[in-house]
Parts: sequence; C-alpha cells; structure tokens
Amino acid sequence: MSEILSSRVLPRGFRFAATSCGLKKRVHHGSLDLALIVSDAPASAAAVFTQNLVQAPPVVLSRAHVRSSADAMRAVIVNSGNANCSTGPGGMAASRATAQCVAKTLGCRAQQVVVCSTGVIGVPLPVERILKAAPGLAGALESSPRAFDGLTRAIMTTDTRPKRAAASCRIGGRTVRVAGCAKGAGMIHPNMATMLSFVITDAAVAPGVLDRTLRQVVGRTFNCISVDGDTSTNDTLLVLANGASGASKIARAGGGDYAKFVAALEQVCKALALGIVADGEGATHLVEIEVRGAPSDRAAAQVARTISGSSLVKTALAGADPNWGRILAAAGRAGVPFNPDHAEIWLGGVKMYGPPAGASYSVALPLDERAAHRRLLEKNVPIVVNLHRGRGTARVWTCDLTKEYVHINASYRT
Amino acid sequence: MSEILSSRVLPRGFRFAATSCGLKKRVHHGSLDLALIVSDAPASAAAVFTQNLVQAPPVVLSRAHVRSSADAMRAVIVNSGNANCSTGPGGMAASRATAQCVAKTLGCRAQQVVVCSTGVIGVPLPVERILKAAPGLAGALESSPRAFDGLTRAIMTTDTRPKRAAASCRIGGRTVRVAGCAKGAGMIHPNMATMLSFVITDAAVAPGVLDRTLRQVVGRTFNCISVDGDTSTNDTLLVLANGASGASKIARAGGGDYAKFVAALEQVCKALALGIVADGEGATHLVEIEVRGAPSDRAAAQVARTISGSSLVKTALAGADPNWGRILAAAGRAGVPFNPDHAEIWLGGVKMYGPPAGASYSVALPLDERAAHRRLLEKNVPIVVNLHRGRGTARVWTCDLTKEYVHINASYRT
Repeated sequence: MSEILSSRVLPRGFRFAATSCGLKKRVHHGSLDLALIVSDAPASAAAVFTQNLVQAPPVVLSRAHVRSSADAMRAVIVNSGNANCSTGPGGMAASRATAQCVAKTLGCRAQQVVVCSTGVIGVPLPVERILKAAPGLAGALESSPRAFDGLTRAIMTTDTRPKRAAASCRIGGRTVRVAGCAKGAGMIHPNMATMLSFVITDAAVAPGVLDRTLRQVVGRTFNCISVDGDTSTNDTLLVLANGASGASKIARAGGGDYAKFVAALEQVCKALALGIVADGEGATHLVEIEVRGAPSDRAAAQVARTISGSSLVKTALAGADPNWGRILAAAGRAGVPFNPDHAEIWLGGVKMYGPPAGASYSVALPLDERAAHRRLLEKNVPIVVNLHRGRGTARVWTCDLTKEYVHINASYRT
Repeated sequence: MSEILSSRVLPRGFRFAATSCGLKKRVHHGSLDLALIVSDAPASAAAVFTQNLVQAPPVVLSRAHVRSSADAMRAVIVNSGNANCSTGPGGMAASRATAQCVAKTLGCRAQQVVVCSTGVIGVPLPVERILKAAPGLAGALESSPRAFDGLTRAIMTTDTRPKRAAASCRIGGRTVRVAGCAKGAGMIHPNMATMLSFVITDAAVAPGVLDRTLRQVVGRTFNCISVDGDTSTNDTLLVLANGASGASKIARAGGGDYAKFVAALEQVCKALALGIVADGEGATHLVEIEVRGAPSDRAAAQVARTISGSSLVKTALAGADPNWGRILAAAGRAGVPFNPDHAEIWLGGVKMYGPPAGASYSVALPLDERAAHRRLLEKNVPIVVNLHRGRGTARVWTCDLTKEYVHINASYRT
C-alpha cells in the first residue's frame, strides 16, 4: 500500500499539488499540510460526511457545494494541522474564503470547490496562510505519481504512512481507472468512519448514480471499520468522476458496466478502509471480525461492532493473548439474543470455544497456548464467532489497543 | 478508603473469614482467594446481577437463591482467581457443590448461601480446592475488622487496593450500621456496573423494601460508573440486612426511618462505586462528568456516558491535556440534539469553551495552557458540559485511559 502508484493506474484528467504553508505545529511528514486536487473537466461528485452533531464549517460548506455542483465539481482543497472546527463564525468565513480563492485561481465558481480540514479542534484556522499559498499550489499542479504522493502525505496527521489504492476495469473497450487516498488514524468508527478520503476516477458516471453507488460501497467498507469508537467533526469521503477515460457514460445503477465500476470502486474503498485500520493509532494488528449465525445481518453487525469496540478484546490482541472469553463477554452485551452455550469462537484460525465431540455444551477447547500466542503475533488476526441462532452474517475490521495509542492521544496537542 | 474499618462501624451479627486455597495463578494480595460472610441470624437479601447475556453459573445460582431465600439468607462464599464461567455443565455443578458444602458446615439450606466467583473466564474451576477449604474457613469466622479486611482483599483481582466503606444512622433510638466492600477493576460499565460488591447492615428491612431500595440506589451509584465500557459475566451486588441492631423494622418504602436508611446505604454504595473507578485498571484520575441543560435527565445521562466512554477523552485526561474539543466531539455523537455553537464546557473547573462576553457563538476561550495542564494533573478532574437545550442533568464517573490499562489487559492471563 505504501508504494507510489504508477502513472499507469492514475485516472486521467486529474492534477495534484501539495505544499507546506505552516499549519502543522511540528514537522510531521516533511510538514506538507496543504494540497489541491483539480479535475481538468467538470466532474460528477458524490460525498458522505460525518454524522457527528458537531460538524466543522468545511463539512457544512462542502456538503452544500456537492449538492449544488454534483455535475460540475472542479477542485478539492484540503489542509491538515487544523480542523477549523468550533471556532465561531470565523471558521465558516475561513472555509468560504478558501473556496473563493481557489475558484478565482482556477477560473471557476466557489461552489465547484470542496474544502476539507483535519487536525486539532477549537484553534482558529490561520486562513491567510492558505490564501497566500493557494496560487502557488495551483501553479504547481501535475498529473504525476509524485504529485499524487504529495497529496497523500499532506493530509496525514497521526498516520504513520500514506494510504492509497487503485483499481481499473474495462468499460466499452476503454480502461477506466479508480484511485484514492485516505488519512486516519484516530477517531475512527462507523457512521461515518472518521477520516478524509478522496477517490478519483476517469469513468463517466451520472451524479445520481455516483451518489447511490458510493453509499452502497461505504456500507460495506468505510462503515465497517473502527479504531477507537470516536467519530470526528470533519469526516469526508469524496468521489470525483470526470469521464476523461472516454468510456461510455454510466447513466443508471444496473448492467455489466455498472457492476464493473462498482467492483473497482469497492476494491479501492476497501483497501483504503483496511489501510486506515492497519495504520490505526498505535496499532500492531489488523483484526477481521466475522459474525455468523445471527438472527439477521443487522444483528450480526451489532455483535461484530460490539466486539470491535471492546477495549478488553483489543488489549488482549495487543498482548497476543488467546483470550476468547472476552470475545464471548463482548458478544453477550451486544443486545442480540443467542445461547452462549451453543456459540463457537475461532481466534487466529484456531477454534477455542465450542462443543467438544459428542457434547451439546460449548466449553474451552484444548489449546496449545504457546502456538496460539505465536499465531496471534502475526499482523492479521481473524476472529470468527458463530452464534448458531440464524443466518445473519457481518464482517468488520478493527485494530488492537496498544500503549502507543494511549501515548499518541495523551500527548496529541503538546 | 484504604484504612481498616473500625469495629465501631461494622454492622452487628456478621462474621467473616478469608483464606488462600490455591485459585490465584500468581501471588496477588497475599494470595487470599476465598472468603466467607455469615450472618448469625437469617437476613433479608436483595441483589442485582450482570445484564450480560453470558452469565456465569454462580450468577444464575445466586439469583435463584436470593429469590427463594430473600427473607432468610445466611452466607456468601466468594472466590477470586477463576470466574467459573463458560466451562460447560461442570460450572453449575461446581457452584451448587460450593453452596451445599457451606450450607452443611453452617447447618442451613443451600438456598441460604450466595455463591460468587471472579477471575478468568473459560478455565474450569478446581472446585475441590474450595470444598476442602470451606470447613476451615467456617471455623475461622470472626466479627473483627481484621476479618472484614481479609474479605475485602480476598475478592481482589487486578485491584490495587481494597475498596470498603461504612455509614450509620439512628433509627428509633438505635444505631444502624451499613458497611460494604467491592472489587473492580476492569470490565466496568453501567448495566450492571461490573464488579462484586457486598453490603451488610444490621438494620431490619423487609425483603421487598430492601430490593426496591437497592435498585434505586444502584441507579444513582454503581450504574453511573464506567472504566472501560465492557460488562462482565459475573457482576453481583448483594445487600444483607440482619436486624441485629435491634432497631425497629423498616416495613415500607417511606417515612423518616426509611429515608435515613436509604441515605446511609447510598453513602456506602457511592463510596464503593467511586472507589472502583478511582482504582480502575491503570487509572491515575477520577473523573466526574456532569451534563446540564439537556432535553431530559435521560438525554443528559446519554451524553455523560458517551463522554465517559470516549477513548480520546480518557487518553487526553491521562496526559493532563486540556482537550475540550474531544469532549465536544464525544457529546456530538451521543444521539442527543443540541446546538454546539451554544454549548459550554468546563474542564478541571476552568471554562474552556463558550460564548465570550457579548458574543452569541461559543468558541475556545482564552486559556493559560500551562495552568490548565497543572490543574489536570490533580487526582480529581471534574468535567461540566452545558448543552443549553433544556433542564435535564446527569452525573457519571469514570477514570482516565493509561498505558498501564493496556499493560494490565494485554498480559492478564500470562
């Protein structure tokens, strides 16, 4: 995931630039903290935003811009180092000024610009630094992989590495490319997964179809991850489709071309979502939690999310402790009816709780503790829980809870 | 809280004993792991148990015993080091055998004995060690403060210190005493707060009144604390009232005597609940979260609990970071409507977010960061949030989330 994407996989008709304008407190990631994405032609746009009641001005403004220019979006300007949130009326003025400045530079309307911010809450945004840097940023736009790489780094906060992904498909004899990047890495929880993510494609997609597709895909990817249960004030996932591939337009949600596009979009979104979890603050493990045999898919998701949010499960995984008891206890408080005496639990591919041969009661199964511990030291840890109470299934992803998570978040602002 | 209670405050007519029978893996707290409480006369009993779907056999058995002997409870036998949970049918057999053994030794019915276990889940309980030790334990019963101290230590697992409290009141010219102990210190969350706690009183209280009173008091004390959001499989809070004070019987939930008894019971329960949070795994701060101005008390509690469960708030507190932005963001995802632009936040007694003089919008208020940091290094940290959206209020307690919490829980079984 950390290799620079090649120019072969980058969608056509997009250019990128990144710079350092002095918003990041310390020197992070070479201190890049401002980036611009431009689509040469007006693009279809769809987005999902945080569901937190506290929404930063850039979220409020960008939601309005996506609504009014869903068929003609031109640019995204994004800063890290400051969330521009909860700072009074000046916050909205700063976001508006940013959009206007970029629009003027590019020769488009302010409504054709999406504005995103991420970083600390409650500190007034020194917007003059952004306004001063924007023209130079526009002058430095390039379609190169190196320019895309700069974008992926400029949006990072506590991330340890950039998250990017690409996929392609063939539509009507033409190659359609989808690429994206995302930043985490704390305040990650479903509804809406907390992060910034930008996905671009040179497919031609009607705005309504793009919106519907994005919401479906998010339900299976970004909304199935959790780092710490907190949701942020600035979450934004934006997709731009500019049609530069020359492939025929996807005008309705159905048919073979549509299915291929959805698959490519889902591949990119899933890779980015898992990348966020794998790079969750302090994380040492990527944990996939699959719940089967629930009364419904929804109930399965409820159990899976409760397990994924359990501090006790997540700390046990940090210690590579085969502590299936905590998984069972977390499932038991999810509010979904099942009989614990009939449930089964696999951890790291090893069945640890279930009925022994010939028995009707689940118990702790004989376990080679050392081998189980060694298995749980691996990066990827699957958990499977079968409730034996129906046919509902769900799959979510989380990371372990480590001392490093506490360290990062106990000293974030200092 | 850690001083031994004097004999003056211990309720009359109860005796205690504790021993080491080899259930604790390592030498903890002098390795005491089995304790007995006996009321010389049959006592009224009331209890609340875990609401987790996964309930250990001692919980299932004790619930039945309290139901059938609410007017004639004689004893509590409690072990630490093993939760006797999720180990198949043998688990219930072990709890039954324990109750029967104690009953035989004391000359009462098994239904007059409450059985409690706490410790690791899923490991079969070596009940023979308990059965072997029980007669000696019964022979060692004493009413002394030292014996009560042994009980408070024998129930500890990851606790760093025993939690105990006492109160008294005058009823009909007689002194009535209430005393209790509790163990935490992880898997602590409302409904039901995760722990074992035993409260004894020499008041005479009708079983129905005792039950109703306990549920009210729990709603204001044990169900208002959270350490890590996980609930356990063995939570039990038991109250025994044996009438040995000679005070007149409280037969109905009303009147001056009843009010005095409720106040004493609440004083003990609140002290124990706060003691659990203050001794939460790895905790360095006791955090009181008060939410005012909510649409209802229930909504206020929802916001307060969401804040108390936020890993980001709790890690900021571990770092003494005056990060009110995370408090606002947590309130914003609680599902309660309010306008963040009108909310106010005090942290450590310092107003950090609210409208400046003459303004109608809340913003970050001027803050002496160093002074705020110093204030947040103190043990007790109050958080007050005013939503300005109604008259509902709530108060809950939690602790900070430290590296030590992760350390304890990443290596609990090894």
